[in-house]
Amino acid sequence: MTQKQLQKSSILLVLPLYPKSTMASDGFRPLDEKSLVEYIKSTPSLVSILGKQFDKLEIKEVGDGNLNFVYIVVAPSGSIVIKQALPYIRCIGESWPMAKERAYFEATALKEHARLSPKHVPEVYHFDRTMCLIGMRYLEPPHIILRKGLIAGVEYPLLAQHISDYMAKTLFFTSLLYLTTTDHKRAVAEFCGNVELCRLTEQVVFSDPYKVSEYNRCTSPYLDADAEAVRNDNGLKIEVAELKSKFCERAQALIHGDLHTGSLMVTHDSTQVIDPEFSFYGPMGFDIGAFIGNLILAYFSQDGHAEQANNRKSYKVWILKTITETWNLFHQKFLALWDEHKDGPGEAYLPEIYNNTELRQLVTQKYMKELFEDTLGFGAAKMIRRIVGVAHVEDFESIKDVAKRADCERQALSCAKKLLKERRNIKSIEEVVSTIEQVQLQ
Amino acid sequence: MTQKQLQKSSILLVLPLYPKSTMASDGFRPLDEKSLVEYIKSTPSLVSILGKQFDKLEIKEVGDGNLNFVYIVVAPSGSIVIKQALPYIRCIGESWPMAKERAYFEATALKEHARLSPKHVPEVYHFDRTMCLIGMRYLEPPHIILRKGLIAGVEYPLLAQHISDYMAKTLFFTSLLYLTTTDHKRAVAEFCGNVELCRLTEQVVFSDPYKVSEYNRCTSPYLDADAEAVRNDNGLKIEVAELKSKFCERAQALIHGDLHTGSLMVTHDSTQVIDPEFSFYGPMGFDIGAFIGNLILAYFSQDGHAEQANNRKSYKVWILKTITETWNLFHQKFLALWDEHKDGPGEAYLPEIYNNTELRQLVTQKYMKELFEDTLGFGAAKMIRRIVGVAHVEDFESIKDVAKRADCERQALSCAKKLLKERRNIKSIEEVVSTIEQVQLQ
Repeated sequence: MTQKQLQKSSILLVLPLYPKSTMASDGFRPLDEKSLVEYIKSTPSLVSILGKQFDKLEIKEVGDGNLNFVYIVVAPSGSIVIKQALPYIRCIGESWPMAKERAYFEATALKEHARLSPKHVPEVYHFDRTMCLIGMRYLEPPHIILRKGLIAGVEYPLLAQHISDYMAKTLFFTSLLYLTTTDHKRAVAEFCGNVELCRLTEQVVFSDPYKVSEYNRCTSPYLDADAEAVRNDNGLKIEVAELKSKFCERAQALIHGDLHTGSLMVTHDSTQVIDPEFSFYGPMGFDIGAFIGNLILAYFSQDGHAEQANNRKSYKVWILKTITETWNLFHQKFLALWDEHKDGPGEAYLPEIYNNTELRQLVTQKYMKELFEDTLGFGAAKMIRRIVGVAHVEDFESIKDVAKRADCERQALSCAKKLLKERRNIKSIEEVVSTIEQVQLQ
Repeated sequence: MTQKQLQKSSILLVLPLYPKSTMASDGFRPLDEKSLVEYIKSTPSLVSILGKQFDKLEIKEVGDGNLNFVYIVVAPSGSIVIKQALPYIRCIGESWPMAKERAYFEATALKEHARLSPKHVPEVYHFDRTMCLIGMRYLEPPHIILRKGLIAGVEYPLLAQHISDYMAKTLFFTSLLYLTTTDHKRAVAEFCGNVELCRLTEQVVFSDPYKVSEYNRCTSPYLDADAEAVRNDNGLKIEVAELKSKFCERAQALIHGDLHTGSLMVTHDSTQVIDPEFSFYGPMGFDIGAFIGNLILAYFSQDGHAEQANNRKSYKVWILKTITETWNLFHQKFLALWDEHKDGPGEAYLPEIYNNTELRQLVTQKYMKELFEDTLGFGAAKMIRRIVGVAHVEDFESIKDVAKRADCERQALSCAKKLLKERRNIKSIEEVVSTIEQVQLQ
């Protein structure tokens, strides 16, 4: 009964040795399996789920130990996951404090997203701001991290349906298409507090891959020249500057901020989005792009996982179908929400102004075109950083034949560069799929 | 010795009768000329400027009485202006509360802008948050509101030099070109609090002119059809939606938020920017566009002010020259600051990434092209709203011959529509000037 929930890290981090004294100064103390029992006993909202047979609690620490502690707690009458953020992280070779307040933003985003898309976000039972501790639904087996399912070649027939639903709802209802300026600005201001996590993204997605950095790595020596080519590609750097500016300046909606395939737990008929600790008001395309970009990475990794018994050909077709359906369903659902709420509280497109069918069609087309371009841009940037930046993905890392892994990565990199540079001329998700297939054939 | 400072209102508002009781609840009380003396006596920072000969204070209320109280206080040893914000405004026909906290944002922006551009922003001597009261430098005669100078046909040879300096410095140093993400997000969050003033702009600039609204007015009946044409122009509405979205979502720099020619006090050799109560982190082009757009309005109003003794022809040439110089000098100064600080704290374009001359040229060209397009877009939107929206400008209002006024306004409106729709194809400020001249010839 191992729990894979949260057994992932966005970047490779090592738990530091922090001074005990700093822990206590603000009431925060890191829990262990023993003190967690005492904590549970004194917390009514957790007792109400787990019951009072404290001697029968089974507790298992399953976090990867880098960023957070994660405990599965199972009692005869119920189960929960407890996640506690630590105040410091240590990136390879460098000690790096990291605001433990990220737990507050994670809990706030989880609750807001669960309110908007309850079927696809685990319920938060308890949040303790001082302790940076979230008590939430335990996603019981057979839930696994989607990325692991993709590596194993498992098809999830409802994935596109579910994730498009989650994205359409969480993004639409937190944007100015639905919110008043007053509510929007209040929320924007609050999530500005999650700046340390935003800075981490800026560094690892938009900066490090395009310069020499001690944190960067790639499948060496095979990709050394490719990584150098990225660092010398003026055209790429111009596009990345535009994306970075949007990421830093454009408060479009409450985004998850890290919506790759490691942030989803899935079964055949369940899709659950976890870990929004990078959440803030940013560009919608960053979320949609993260998901689609990581599916494209999964696609290009398949040849590395092909075996005689399973050449993965039909699986690759399924991934491409899922990419297509994800965007097209998102597009359809997002516009349906917009249409349904066109007379709602949102002040961006007042019905008295956008008052005829032709005009509404024109503005929605323009909106979705920009969102599509952002999606491709951010998706491509997220792909690139997973190949030449600090944090790689298991899709490629688990390919043992290093030369083969490098081939797969090179194809993904080539595809990402194409998407990033040519996104303004790509008219549909079907064209994206064609681009992917063309790169694969080369 | 009448003081025109702050004798202007962005929209037409009438002082309401508010219940006395609500005033005291938070320590706020509106001052009058008598209680102001007591206030000064008990405020060391004001005493240090005015001295202690309180019986020799000359106090004059010069605010227009709509939005704020404004007092000129002159003593034998010094002088100040006291501005107090009121907690309610009443828009024509409707009672409308308005956060008196705007005084906090005005004072904060004044101080920040004065730090960055001390020659062009009056010094703040004192700010009392509870009383929503700012004590600041009295801009003594012959300072007058620039708009009044433009109506009178006065040339200000240093205006373009000064305002471009102010804009380049205040916008550059509060953008991510200079600030770290941490400092930028902290400031963005703080200014999100000025949301009520942002909402007012959204309504009067981006919404009301494009729909039927009780607040709209125009030079009727001459412009009735033109106003209706604006309300039925799909192409215009699409562009305005894009601008509104940028205004609401894009935290590019600390903008003044209301930088029209009524927000400047000038003499032959002094240019002072006042009244940033609409300040927040928004798109830079909103400020530059406000200034240039209002110069274009001044241009088109000149024929209405022409007399036998002065046909205003040479003055119109001076306005066009000032428009050209303002943008070109801004462009030059902004890029000089960028170059000077390219190794500074700003994280948008890291020198390790943007590491060759060609690339830096490409990114700055792209940045300035977008800023130019934003400037034309916002400038045009600000022009349109001054002709068919709630708040008109004295440049046109003071033309007594109504038919002539309508002609002038119609030309300005036509020019604005052209700039708004074609801004992406306009390559230079010289082309803008050609467009203005062409409209005038038609």
